[in-house]
Amino acid sequence: MELDRRTMLAGATMLAAGAGRAAAPQRKLGYAIVGLGVYGLGVISPQFANCRSSRLVAYVSGDRDKARAAAAKYGVPERSIYSYAEFDRIRDNPDIDIVYVCLPNSMHAEYVIRAAKAGKHVMCEKPMAVSVAECEAMIAACKAANRKLMIGYRCHFEAFNLEATRLARAGAAGKIRYVRSEHGFVQTNPEAWRLKRALSGGGSLMDMGVYSLQAARYMTGEEPVAVTARESTDRSDPRFHEVEDIIDWTLEFPSGAIGSCQSMYSANQNHILLMGDKGRIELEPGTRYNGNRMWLGKDGREQEIINPPPGPGPTQWAGQLDHLVDCIRSNREPIVSGAEGLRDMRIVEAIYRSAREGRTVRL
Amino acid sequence: MELDRRTMLAGATMLAAGAGRAAAPQRKLGYAIVGLGVYGLGVISPQFANCRSSRLVAYVSGDRDKARAAAAKYGVPERSIYSYAEFDRIRDNPDIDIVYVCLPNSMHAEYVIRAAKAGKHVMCEKPMAVSVAECEAMIAACKAANRKLMIGYRCHFEAFNLEATRLARAGAAGKIRYVRSEHGFVQTNPEAWRLKRALSGGGSLMDMGVYSLQAARYMTGEEPVAVTARESTDRSDPRFHEVEDIIDWTLEFPSGAIGSCQSMYSANQNHILLMGDKGRIELEPGTRYNGNRMWLGKDGREQEIINPPPGPGPTQWAGQLDHLVDCIRSNREPIVSGAEGLRDMRIVEAIYRSAREGRTVRL
Repeated sequence: MELDRRTMLAGATMLAAGAGRAAAPQRKLGYAIVGLGVYGLGVISPQFANCRSSRLVAYVSGDRDKARAAAAKYGVPERSIYSYAEFDRIRDNPDIDIVYVCLPNSMHAEYVIRAAKAGKHVMCEKPMAVSVAECEAMIAACKAANRKLMIGYRCHFEAFNLEATRLARAGAAGKIRYVRSEHGFVQTNPEAWRLKRALSGGGSLMDMGVYSLQAARYMTGEEPVAVTARESTDRSDPRFHEVEDIIDWTLEFPSGAIGSCQSMYSANQNHILLMGDKGRIELEPGTRYNGNRMWLGKDGREQEIINPPPGPGPTQWAGQLDHLVDCIRSNREPIVSGAEGLRDMRIVEAIYRSAREGRTVRL
Repeated sequence: MELDRRTMLAGATMLAAGAGRAAAPQRKLGYAIVGLGVYGLGVISPQFANCRSSRLVAYVSGDRDKARAAAAKYGVPERSIYSYAEFDRIRDNPDIDIVYVCLPNSMHAEYVIRAAKAGKHVMCEKPMAVSVAECEAMIAACKAANRKLMIGYRCHFEAFNLEATRLARAGAAGKIRYVRSEHGFVQTNPEAWRLKRALSGGGSLMDMGVYSLQAARYMTGEEPVAVTARESTDRSDPRFHEVEDIIDWTLEFPSGAIGSCQSMYSANQNHILLMGDKGRIELEPGTRYNGNRMWLGKDGREQEIINPPPGPGPTQWAGQLDHLVDCIRSNREPIVSGAEGLRDMRIVEAIYRSAREGRTVRL
């Protein structure tokens, strides 16, 4: 009986790891976090405690005191703290299997490419980069180094979004006609790097807009064929001297479904709505770290889905971090690979172009 | 004491009637309903029972049996039933003060103009007509005849919409940045007149889209300066051989606020959301006959407004019907006059043009 239970658990572990090999416990793969901002330090670092196959082994930071304090807190050895100048030495650290790039957007390409050249697999925060050309160079560098590249699209590992996508594919709303996705928050700090074009590459679209775009794509399961966008920014507002505030865009999908998306830095919103000819699936908030809610309805929010099936990990980030480990071990492409980041960036460029030129842009 | 109470009641009646004259009880003004479809017969006819100053006195219909049955039900005398061929004889019926045009859209202009020429004031269902040129002709005809012209925008008399508008003006959401308005339903009858271009002048935009456009305008209190629109219609669907299904449009307002609006005939929705930098005001459903709901929130629907202050009448239609009477008596323009209908039609034409040409149209 005891043996049987052990065998079953080992089988479950093997399946969970996506590995077809024997069930000997595998070494957790080691992540180096590059960039100790709010996300890398405050959000990602604590998540390794929830991981099955991933552990935190190194930090790359421009602030050695901050890195030391974080290293002490999360058990990262002193020898595995690097400055940006020392970055390429990560190649000599066998603890590091994966580099997680949590830097401002315009630095993604450089550090992803350097990580691949140092022989490391890469997790890169969204947006993948600030241009299609950069995305293509990143994909090429990882391919040349035979390293995996995954984009930090955490919502692909989040229980409500997974269940919403499953329900949409299962026809819970009928034939899909329309998806709405709105994401924004009130930027209060005019000094935020996200408001500096040289670092962010753009405004709300490069930040919350990526959630809106992603949701429109995974909820419909389609790739848009055209985009029509409008921007509205008060350039006299000190926050918006360099980047856009509101951007609103319409996606046309091959099925005839329409995606109406938006992002902004001047109001709070977090909403995904899928409309079909038989009903609707709605999330609000839809892509938050915690507290997402979801409804099925005919006309409104008739039925709340309180407990969707759990995602692949105990948290969306644990699922995300372990997925890359699983892909490395089984030599599969991540479900949100560099190709997925590039798809978004092509659309992002088209959105900006459409807004600038005041006309529909075909993709 | 009794005298005092009577005096106060008379004063209240006088104020309610918008009249500055003596408090002798006034004759209710008489409406003739033209067109005994779902709206004229099923929705408007029963509403006179709720009116303070309006009564139903005549019917114009192509179906004499239907008109007779309705006349019996609502106390309309047999002599005040007219066929369309007999329409111009309404001039000789002193009971008729106002003609309420509830016909298919493409017939509005003709019957409004004939009503004015017959010396009657006019209530015209929305959309006002099927073109700007028609709207201008209707306004000119009513002006030449010195008759009032009002459009049947019932939401201007509906308690939730009035309270939402009041809250928006009072700054309850802060600086207005974004308004969303979506209206649609599943058209199930391919034979509906709304799907015949010769009668409707267009698809969902000419029907539910007018609610979306109106809400964007009254919630912001601004007039759009540009519109960018996209249409999506499955022309192989037997319902949509002649008119559009989905149309999605973005309005740019002078303040920098954006309106993201939509209408469709292939999914049910009825939603108004106003976003500001301090919060939001949301209605869902927002413009139904009954059961509208409303919330104030920071991020979501934190606070439901259960009992907004009552509108001007016991129902939105009673408020609407009596408003025109009040305007006639006090020689004021209705708050939703022909000029208001014309404003919408100019935007409707720009929406269609933008969708057709794939570019932003300035207004």
